[in-house]
Amino acid sequence: MKSFLSDKAKSIEPYTPGEQPKDKNYIKLNTNESPYPPSPYVKKALIESNFDDLRLYPDPNVSDLKKEIAELYNINTNNIFIGNGSDEILAFCFMAFFNRSDKIYYPNITYSFYSVYSSLFDLNEVKIPLKDDFTIDINDYKNLDSGIFIANPNAPTGLLLTLDQLEEIIINNKDNIVIIDEAYIDFAAIESAYKLTKKYDNLLVVQTFSKSRSLAGIRLGFAIGNENLIQGLKNIKYSFNSYTINRLSIIAGIEAIKDNQYFKDTVNKVINTREKTKIKLKELGFNVLDSKSNFIFISHKNIFAEDLYLKLKDKGILVRYFKSDLINNYIRVTIGTDEEMDIFVEKIKYIIKN
Amino acid sequence: MKSFLSDKAKSIEPYTPGEQPKDKNYIKLNTNESPYPPSPYVKKALIESNFDDLRLYPDPNVSDLKKEIAELYNINTNNIFIGNGSDEILAFCFMAFFNRSDKIYYPNITYSFYSVYSSLFDLNEVKIPLKDDFTIDINDYKNLDSGIFIANPNAPTGLLLTLDQLEEIIINNKDNIVIIDEAYIDFAAIESAYKLTKKYDNLLVVQTFSKSRSLAGIRLGFAIGNENLIQGLKNIKYSFNSYTINRLSIIAGIEAIKDNQYFKDTVNKVINTREKTKIKLKELGFNVLDSKSNFIFISHKNIFAEDLYLKLKDKGILVRYFKSDLINNYIRVTIGTDEEMDIFVEKIKYIIKN
Repeated sequence: MKSFLSDKAKSIEPYTPGEQPKDKNYIKLNTNESPYPPSPYVKKALIESNFDDLRLYPDPNVSDLKKEIAELYNINTNNIFIGNGSDEILAFCFMAFFNRSDKIYYPNITYSFYSVYSSLFDLNEVKIPLKDDFTIDINDYKNLDSGIFIANPNAPTGLLLTLDQLEEIIINNKDNIVIIDEAYIDFAAIESAYKLTKKYDNLLVVQTFSKSRSLAGIRLGFAIGNENLIQGLKNIKYSFNSYTINRLSIIAGIEAIKDNQYFKDTVNKVINTREKTKIKLKELGFNVLDSKSNFIFISHKNIFAEDLYLKLKDKGILVRYFKSDLINNYIRVTIGTDEEMDIFVEKIKYIIKN
Repeated sequence: MKSFLSDKAKSIEPYTPGEQPKDKNYIKLNTNESPYPPSPYVKKALIESNFDDLRLYPDPNVSDLKKEIAELYNINTNNIFIGNGSDEILAFCFMAFFNRSDKIYYPNITYSFYSVYSSLFDLNEVKIPLKDDFTIDINDYKNLDSGIFIANPNAPTGLLLTLDQLEEIIINNKDNIVIIDEAYIDFAAIESAYKLTKKYDNLLVVQTFSKSRSLAGIRLGFAIGNENLIQGLKNIKYSFNSYTINRLSIIAGIEAIKDNQYFKDTVNKVINTREKTKIKLKELGFNVLDSKSNFIFISHKNIFAEDLYLKLKDKGILVRYFKSDLINNYIRVTIGTDEEMDIFVEKIKYIIKN
């Protein structure tokens, strides 16, 4: 039988999202979702929305949501691009800012979807090794000859570069686009790099509603950059799918941005729980990276990470384990509520001691 | 200033979606939306949904919606792919079934997004001329040397190929994929080609929730084909964006599929209105193509189509006008409610007579 598939569709190894098993109720600490529901205003606005209007296409420009983001960050709507999750924006970035066979730089340990995009769009990825302690040496990123992706905080380490460090990279790559993936920045208690977009035309900052805004289920992400970069993203988007964002997600997104106090409160709760959990795990002998994200990356000398992952799953707790060579002795654990993390610590303590 | 944009992002001419002006309340007959709201069960299910769960990622496989479609069409869920609107599926098709520089065949007058995709993904499009009466000569589509896209009914003509005609094309292209874009098939009162997917491994059928299911605002489309083709689409999708469909759209889609009686009733109302409108326009001297879609494609010897479009807009009625050479003396008019079409006919009559 003829296959009909393109070479790419036959050969590519897709990204593997975290498992979503339905066999039982897990404490789900594997996909970096928020343990807290979205702002109550999200529900209110959705319930009160005009459902008859669902017969009509949404605004392809997503203007109303852009207005809210523009107001929150004190920027212009022309500096904002909205995507169907930040992953869609990342995919569009590969098409908008790179030609086939271009080089593209990122750390050898980072969000593994970057490699999949490089393969999908035929770029030549150059993976820059992290230092032994999993930190990024910014000197490795100066005066490169093509575009750069940096997740900040990085995934799955959770480690953070400061704004000054990022600025050094950006200044020293004037002819290269630098894309900062800030999926987890709100948990870092430092400022987003978005303010630097006013100063540097080679910087694009990407954020998501999936983590700190408790809306992974509605699929929204946004990018901030100078108008030229945003226009590049628009040109690709309007050549791919005119209406990527549905009406209900727009409504939900607007309310999530407006309720900034709720956002701050829930983010702070996650940060507090993270710091408490770090201490408890260190007491149990875990090596705990200093994550500034809504997850922690941990290992223990007495047990293989894969065993730990499987034993936790058996006990009803899902965490993320990556088989990749460099990090296969770590598990990534999303920060849940205090109650969930207490149970997690209790179970992991039992596993370690037996 | 350096541009940073890829050659593609600089050079591509994106698809232009129908205008969505906000300056006044138009009778909106320009983007082929349904004039009827979605099934009342859509609203009910959305209002009763668990909004707290929006913090969690959706099911990337969209299994629950696939189950409903599988049941309705009596097929297997492995033969279904769900997309963020059928446009996203079409884009994925270009990546899943064609290599760069491959030829791709479609009519010279059809959904103009196909050309944009060809350009975005560097394919060599071959536009096969329609006959002078805008019909497709199926003999032009036999024994080709690469894949084929056919919109059935075609856009913006609304003209239909029968299932027998399609089968002749499919049989005579055993080594080429044939993609039938059935965005408007439900208004044609013939069977979808999906049943042929059980017989032919080179056939993929694409449908949408945006027209006959009154849900343009939630962005859902689906494709039906043999498992191999569906796997190709999945490989691309999971290399592009793991979670393309949000939780609320899944809920809405399930209810729209379940309420098949409402679907049939509203589709029949549109068909009846279309046929009545055709007669009235012919009486006014219009050339009216025999559309089997939820729009009509019309011209009049006494007035330039662009003038007609502008005068209708001035009178509060939006229709679609394409500047393209071959069809620039036609306007495309979406079928609204009986009341809307009465107003439309009255206004157009006034315009013609003055």
